Amino acid sequence: LFALSSNVLYYLKRKINFGNDPRKVIHSLKVGFALVLVSLFYFVDTLYKQVGENAMWAVMTVVVIFEFSAGATLSKGLNRGIGTILGGGLGCLTAIVAEKVGGTGKNIAVGITVFIFGVLASYCRLVPSFKKKFDYGAMIFILTFNLIAVSGLQGEKVIDLALDRLLTIGIGFVICIFTSLVIFPVWASDELHSSFASKFDRLASSIERCTEEYFKQTDEKDDSTTVNFDGYLSVLHSKSKDEILANFARWEPWHGKFGFFYPWDKYLHVGDLLNELAASIFSLKECVHSPRQPLSTPARLPLKEPCKAVASFVSSTLRELGESIKNMRIMIRQGGATAAKLQKMKVELSGAMSVSDVAKLDKT
Amino acid sequence: LFALSSNVLYYLKRKINFGNDPRKVIHSLKVGFALVLVSLFYFVDTLYKQVGENAMWAVMTVVVIFEFSAGATLSKGLNRGIGTILGGGLGCLTAIVAEKVGGTGKNIAVGITVFIFGVLASYCRLVPSFKKKFDYGAMIFILTFNLIAVSGLQGEKVIDLALDRLLTIGIGFVICIFTSLVIFPVWASDELHSSFASKFDRLASSIERCTEEYFKQTDEKDDSTTVNFDGYLSVLHSKSKDEILANFARWEPWHGKFGFFYPWDKYLHVGDLLNELAASIFSLKECVHSPRQPLSTPARLPLKEPCKAVASFVSSTLRELGESIKNMRIMIRQGGATAAKLQKMKVELSGAMSVSDVAKLDKT
Repeated sequence: LFALSSNVLYYLKRKINFGNDPRKVIHSLKVGFALVLVSLFYFVDTLYKQVGENAMWAVMTVVVIFEFSAGATLSKGLNRGIGTILGGGLGCLTAIVAEKVGGTGKNIAVGITVFIFGVLASYCRLVPSFKKKFDYGAMIFILTFNLIAVSGLQGEKVIDLALDRLLTIGIGFVICIFTSLVIFPVWASDELHSSFASKFDRLASSIERCTEEYFKQTDEKDDSTTVNFDGYLSVLHSKSKDEILANFARWEPWHGKFGFFYPWDKYLHVGDLLNELAASIFSLKECVHSPRQPLSTPARLPLKEPCKAVASFVSSTLRELGESIKNMRIMIRQGGATAAKLQKMKVELSGAMSVSDVAKLDKT
Repeated sequence: LFALSSNVLYYLKRKINFGNDPRKVIHSLKVGFALVLVSLFYFVDTLYKQVGENAMWAVMTVVVIFEFSAGATLSKGLNRGIGTILGGGLGCLTAIVAEKVGGTGKNIAVGITVFIFGVLASYCRLVPSFKKKFDYGAMIFILTFNLIAVSGLQGEKVIDLALDRLLTIGIGFVICIFTSLVIFPVWASDELHSSFASKFDRLASSIERCTEEYFKQTDEKDDSTTVNFDGYLSVLHSKSKDEILANFARWEPWHGKFGFFYPWDKYLHVGDLLNELAASIFSLKECVHSPRQPLSTPARLPLKEPCKAVASFVSSTLRELGESIKNMRIMIRQGGATAAKLQKMKVELSGAMSVSDVAKLDKT
């Protein structure tokens, strides 16, 4: 077994070098730790006698809600909690009412209620605004409601059953939150913040490389397309990833530099503007590669100075903005100012595009 | 209860008018039906005597794997099946080996195994290529493995336990697949195909409206921005949604016009090109709104004919392509031809942009 675990360690070490993200390894170790912790219910006989078979629900809770970032874990955990309480409560009510009805009517009554709540909750799960935040909660609601309501039919004491399950789910939740938030927490908010700040840098490099490329090669024209300046592409397609991160970040408690009610929406708003800037850079790149551009270096030379000037102005502004956001010198709460600056820059950039056309036409 | 259900029906009716998508209502009704079907385990005493408490796993399977599209349901169901079989098998093995060890060593051996498999499976869930297809399966693997392995510690007959659970999960799976694929199935492939075909149309309208707007208003300049031609925006941000749909479409069996091994990757490839076209349209729109454009209608008039010609050429080509893809006249397998046509059109479009600049400069 020792040989096995050292093999595993070696494998993990190689993986670290591959992935270059120690957070992933730490996360996996945390999950393993939480699993062992929750398995204590089975390891220790006195504990098992207390909860019995219901220990299963604690294990299930840990496996299901432990996600990579603290925000995701919290969001899933709270959803599970709310869903269980609501579903369990309504389930108990249904079981008790059905008991009053008695006879065959009992089965029919429970069947109809299960159908109605199942339909309603499933429909809610398809409404986008609801789905974004409470999809998992609605699923757990259906599950708990169904299990508790039908258990009553087989003569189980539903309220005891519901409370026991709620208790073990609560224990699983506490173990998860403890492991996720206390031991090397991975914050979705940190990730959103740093990826957001790095976007400025990526856009700046894209602009610089684009102009460099235009004025450098003429004979090696075909090789030039292999020059990699795809930073803008990752920005162009980051919208849905950002939305997910912002959604998790909203669930995270106060920590580090972020207070309560931190305006994550501003990140998305400025992110949209950066997205548009990335689309402009894409067009700029297409123009540079267009067959209508003059092929010889001399024809391009007179443009070099003004273009370089605009490019370096735009990219240094971008870098400066990115730096200040990273170090939170400009508070992101003043997102309006940043947005205005970006808007101005976008105009500058499209201006630059027509300037280069102007100059080109002057030469030809 | 009758009043309640008629209220619910009224509510649903209103919702249909809101959402305008009867598929959502049908899906919800299907979920309700599947839930009632799986609850029969509890309703019918003879069935309950056969499976007992394990009926819970059938209910859980239905609630958890029933997704909106057939592909998503199949993907989750197969993942659950594979995860349960692997996890259950390894769990039984661990329990049996631990039984051989005996004494306190038993607990330690199980604890270490739980930790190692938990860590490994959690790490796999973070590897993007694995996560995309088997995320849910890995989660179920951890869950089943853990529950079966630790149940052995409390003297349960693990193999019987594992087989009973597998059986009930299998029944839940069959109920789900039957309801999802046989009664009004919603195919992810259909949705991907039709949304893909409609993209061409949306881009075509965006181009047309963009040119129209440029030549129409001058005095009502400020109002012009309210003209809604945002079709290109939905195309620009459709990448991740398309990837999810294509991922589900791959799991779907042969149906309707789509055969086995249908090349869903081509959709993503051409989708990327449409994405780039959308970015170009965005730039075109920015140029049209640029303050450097001549403000008076007479200055724009000479451009009207060539611009309209290019715009109508591009948009009619796009519409034609969209139509043929929708009716599958051009087989999507020949995606290369479509891609080439789009590439050519993109060049045309950027050409059009410089033409409009040329003409503008001629006038000024």
